[in-house]
Amino acid sequence: MRTLKLTLEYDGTGFAGWQAQPGQRTVQGEVEAAVAKLVGERTVVFAAGRTDAGVHARGQVASFRTGSAHAPYKFLGGLNSLLPEDVAVLAVADAPSDFHAQKSARGKWYRYLIQDGGPRTALARSRLWRLPHRLDLEAMRQAAAPLVGEHDFSGFRSASCEATSPIKEMRRIEIFRDGRDRLVIELWSSAFLKQMARTIVGTLVEVGQGKRAPEAMPAILAGRDRRAAGPTAPAQGLYLLRVDY
Amino acid sequence: MRTLKLTLEYDGTGFAGWQAQPGQRTVQGEVEAAVAKLVGERTVVFAAGRTDAGVHARGQVASFRTGSAHAPYKFLGGLNSLLPEDVAVLAVADAPSDFHAQKSARGKWYRYLIQDGGPRTALARSRLWRLPHRLDLEAMRQAAAPLVGEHDFSGFRSASCEATSPIKEMRRIEIFRDGRDRLVIELWSSAFLKQMARTIVGTLVEVGQGKRAPEAMPAILAGRDRRAAGPTAPAQGLYLLRVDY
Repeated sequence: MRTLKLTLEYDGTGFAGWQAQPGQRTVQGEVEAAVAKLVGERTVVFAAGRTDAGVHARGQVASFRTGSAHAPYKFLGGLNSLLPEDVAVLAVADAPSDFHAQKSARGKWYRYLIQDGGPRTALARSRLWRLPHRLDLEAMRQAAAPLVGEHDFSGFRSASCEATSPIKEMRRIEIFRDGRDRLVIELWSSAFLKQMARTIVGTLVEVGQGKRAPEAMPAILAGRDRRAAGPTAPAQGLYLLRVDY
Repeated sequence: MRTLKLTLEYDGTGFAGWQAQPGQRTVQGEVEAAVAKLVGERTVVFAAGRTDAGVHARGQVASFRTGSAHAPYKFLGGLNSLLPEDVAVLAVADAPSDFHAQKSARGKWYRYLIQDGGPRTALARSRLWRLPHRLDLEAMRQAAAPLVGEHDFSGFRSASCEATSPIKEMRRIEIFRDGRDRLVIELWSSAFLKQMARTIVGTLVEVGQGKRAPEAMPAILAGRDRRAAGPTAPAQGLYLLRVDY
């Protein structure tokens, strides 16, 4: 048996998220079906991050064990020809036998894309969160700063989160404009609790809208109470960009 | 009666092109239905360019006459709330009474997006033409140069083209890389014959693939025979960016 590491891109729009669920179209379900068809064996494919329904990936990492002797490039071509057009395999590589996409991950990089103001977009409609008015970038940066570092992020986790520890190390948050009315929020963390990225974004947006003071952030973090944070930002603006090992 | 000018963005993926056809979902059909619902009168909406099925627009221009006294911003909000999510109105303005989106147009700017090499993309799958190998940019630029100027473009028009004159002024062609494996071809012309942009792109791609010499272009142009040109590039890579008046 060998372990293979896949790098995946997908358009989350048509999926009920990563994780296989009976009767639902999921990325894991599609990838496992393609692997089964290619190598003739059923295997579980693990992902670094179990992205929610509607969340996109440009660099999701997944791993599985197989008895197949196919070269990695055979997997690349074979899986891409078997997968539906909204999932693509970007790379395939042999990994150490104890490699596990989720357990071995040391950090993840997420991007959130916002349109603040301007007309409705038809081409990017399932790719960003559209807000009617311009956000205050400086206030958002000020609010984000105290999140960086090792913290208990319970205040930003979903009630259904099953992570054993809420303590994660947020390594960096970048907030910048990419064009006139496009705003990007990038989050690098050792790991993310369930809906943590989207809850941080939802809270930062309320700061950018002037509904909360940037100075309120340390108390939300320290309070560890999800109800004190802002709304969960919509899934379609979120992209898993990269996983570090 | 007054004349209104609309600027439109649309995702061409779900449309059988601009032009209304019985039993087909078209951009014209959707816009006319939204106008009828908003102002309670049926009117014909004319577009600067009747884009083919699958072709996108970031700056299509359309015009129509109406008896409504609504302010332009009321049309902007009203039409956007009535239109499906794959068509958006970017701007609405009053225009001179003799303004006609198609007949008054003095020039159009199209962009064609190619991915040459690299893995399959899931997120941009209906937004570009994916080719397996890297194209020779310099050869394509050399081939494009003789197309600039006033020419009879019969060699690059579809058999079903109904334009009265095949003579158009190609004002500029730009070919450049936008990222590692993304190639952009931009065409500015006084007007475009049916499938002219896509046929020029298909021919330039054959030059970029080494299947044709760049020096062959003047003869294809002079021969005015569609069979001498390359294939029609797929619709999903083409964007109508702007119309000049």
